[in-house]
Order: sequence, then structure tokens, then C-alpha cells
Amino acid sequence: MQESLVRLTRQLSFLVEVDKLKQVLRQTSLIDGSRRENSAEHSWHIALMALVLAEHAGAVVNLHHVLVMLLVHDIVEVDAGDTFAFDIQANATKAEREQLAAARIFSLLPEEQGKLLRSAWDEFEAGVTAEARFANALDRLAGLLSNQHNDGGTWRRHHVSREAVLRRMEPIREGAPGLWPFVMQVVDEAAASGALGA
Amino acid sequence: MQESLVRLTRQLSFLVEVDKLKQVLRQTSLIDGSRRENSAEHSWHIALMALVLAEHAGAVVNLHHVLVMLLVHDIVEVDAGDTFAFDIQANATKAEREQLAAARIFSLLPEEQGKLLRSAWDEFEAGVTAEARFANALDRLAGLLSNQHNDGGTWRRHHVSREAVLRRMEPIREGAPGLWPFVMQVVDEAAASGALGA
Repeated sequence: MQESLVRLTRQLSFLVEVDKLKQVLRQTSLIDGSRRENSAEHSWHIALMALVLAEHAGAVVNLHHVLVMLLVHDIVEVDAGDTFAFDIQANATKAEREQLAAARIFSLLPEEQGKLLRSAWDEFEAGVTAEARFANALDRLAGLLSNQHNDGGTWRRHHVSREAVLRRMEPIREGAPGLWPFVMQVVDEAAASGALGA
Repeated sequence: MQESLVRLTRQLSFLVEVDKLKQVLRQTSLIDGSRRENSAEHSWHIALMALVLAEHAGAVVNLHHVLVMLLVHDIVEVDAGDTFAFDIQANATKAEREQLAAARIFSLLPEEQGKLLRSAWDEFEAGVTAEARFANALDRLAGLLSNQHNDGGTWRRHHVSREAVLRRMEPIREGAPGLWPFVMQVVDEAAASGALGA
């Protein structure tokens, strides 16, 4: 096979494989509560959040790089599934499962492309750069918005405490400090309504 | 209300509103055929296609701008619904319905942000710039990939001819010529298998 054709075949096999992300269900629901959302449509939504909310980031960020991270941030769930934020047992094995998944899935691509997207995923996971902090903040914001519009959603269903939610939302305070007053307002309202435990 | 709070409130109301795109079903199916896909997860998938397939574009493109267009390209469907490519009647009213939708939805945002994203949507629709041509090519490619993996999918179901599909795929020849041999191969295989009419 011609080299360029080998290359395109690998690119398409990656794109076909990650189509499965459309079937990975998260714990959170659509904002209207009609069903649980999947990780592919969630990834679209937070990429759009990045475009709209960039001014609230904690530092000047390279927005394109934020988008690249957000587009790939959940791809490993094709193998590893979505791990619920407040599930302690599942989170103990999450890193290992996701590393194996990343190794397999990104290697479907031509080598240099696989490395590039893998490094974007690694950067998101490490959460150290300004771009990764902002991207992680948006990932947390998505869950908060869903729960805000679903009478507490996963918080109420899993008896999560106000303190645990604030700990979970901490990346927003760091990565998108302009959104923090809004987060506090939502959390306080949820606590007042009984959606969050003391 | 403080000006910055008014601004954030408008940004969030837009993001909450477009969550509805997760419920707009396209005619095409997931690649494994298990269900129809929605326009939000489709938007994620083609944004990822842009990252992976940029080298096949017909010109050097500003990839960030391509991503912005792809993230907003279907937003109007929140009001206007998805219009099936081969439905002549529905396509007669599509432009008008989508213009009304764009006017409403983008105006939820702070004015200058609404204008910016609206202009990205307009640019995608016009399909004139190199970025818009590449973005439109990917939009067509997504449908082709789905049908390739679903025994002809919408082509077979709606008795579409080989000629009509090639006309529909024309933006790929213009916007991503590197992908054209692959398109021809898929179309020829579909025709040979009887998925496409003569």
C-alpha cells in the first residue's frame, strides 16, 4: 500500500474507533433531565464553553490548545468507561485503566499524530499548565450546570456533601476564578434546597 | 445587576440553551449502527476529524478557525431541526428557518460574542473561505463514514443514486481533495453492493 494511503487508513481507523465515545454514558443528565448525557456530546459542549467563557480563565490561555485538549480529554473512556467523580473505589483504578486505554487508542494514529494528541491528553490530566487548568475547570463546570438544572442531580442522588462538592469544584477556583462566585451561588442554593448534605 | 454578572448570565443562558442540540437527531447512525446520532456528538466528532485530517485540506487552513466553525455549525438546529440532505421539500425552507434560528440563538450571548460566533456560522454556510470549504468537506465526510459502516445507511434507505451522492460529496473534492480517492472508493463499493442506485 502507498505510504499516504497507509497514513489515511490509520487516521480513519482512529476516527471510527472513537465514534464509540458516543455510547459512553456519564452520570450527569442533559440540562432538561430527559436522559443521561454521553461523553462525546459532553466534549462538544465544553469545547463551546471554552469559546464563550475564555475571559474567565485565570490566565491568558492559548484557546486553540484548550480546544485540542477538550476534544480528546475523554477519549480513553472508549476503553475505560466513565468513572463517576464521587466513586472512591472506581477512582482507585481509574489512572491505570486510562493509561492502558490511551496507549491503545492514540497509537491507532500515524505515530507523530498519536504522540501529539496523547501529549494533549497527558497535559489535561496533569492539570498544570494554564490551558489545562482552564480546561479542567470547564469539565467541572459542566457537571455543576447539569446538577443545577436537575434539582441537585448526581449530588442529591448520591448524598454528596457541600464540602465534597466544593473540593470537587476547586479546579474552577484555580483555572477559571471569574466563575467562582457563580459556583458558590449554585452550591449555596443547592445546600439551601436540601440537594446537598451538610 | 453588575455588568460582569449580566455578561456571565448571558453566556450561561446561551450554553444552557444549546444543550438542546444533544436532542436533535440526524438521519445518520452511529458507526456501529446501534442508534441515530445527534448533532452535538456529531459536532464533536467532526471537530476531531479536523484535527486529524488537516493535512488533506485543499489549502493551508487556520485550524483554530475551522474548529470554531465546526463547534457552532449545527447550533441553529436547536430551533430549525436537522434537515435531511436528500429531502428536497425540507431543503426549500431550510435557509429561512436557520436564519431565524441563528438570529435568536446567537443573540443570547453578549453582543460582540454573539456577532463573532454568528459570523463563524455565516462563513461555514457560505462555504467560500478555505477554512469553510474544509469544514464543509468534513461535514460531508461524516455522513459518508456512517453510511460506509452501515451497509449504505441513509443512501440505501432513501434509494439515493450514485450520481446524487457524488454531487453531495463535491465539497470534499474542493475542500479536502486529499480525501477524494477514498470517497470515490466508498461510493464505488456502495454502488457495487447495491446500496446505491444507478
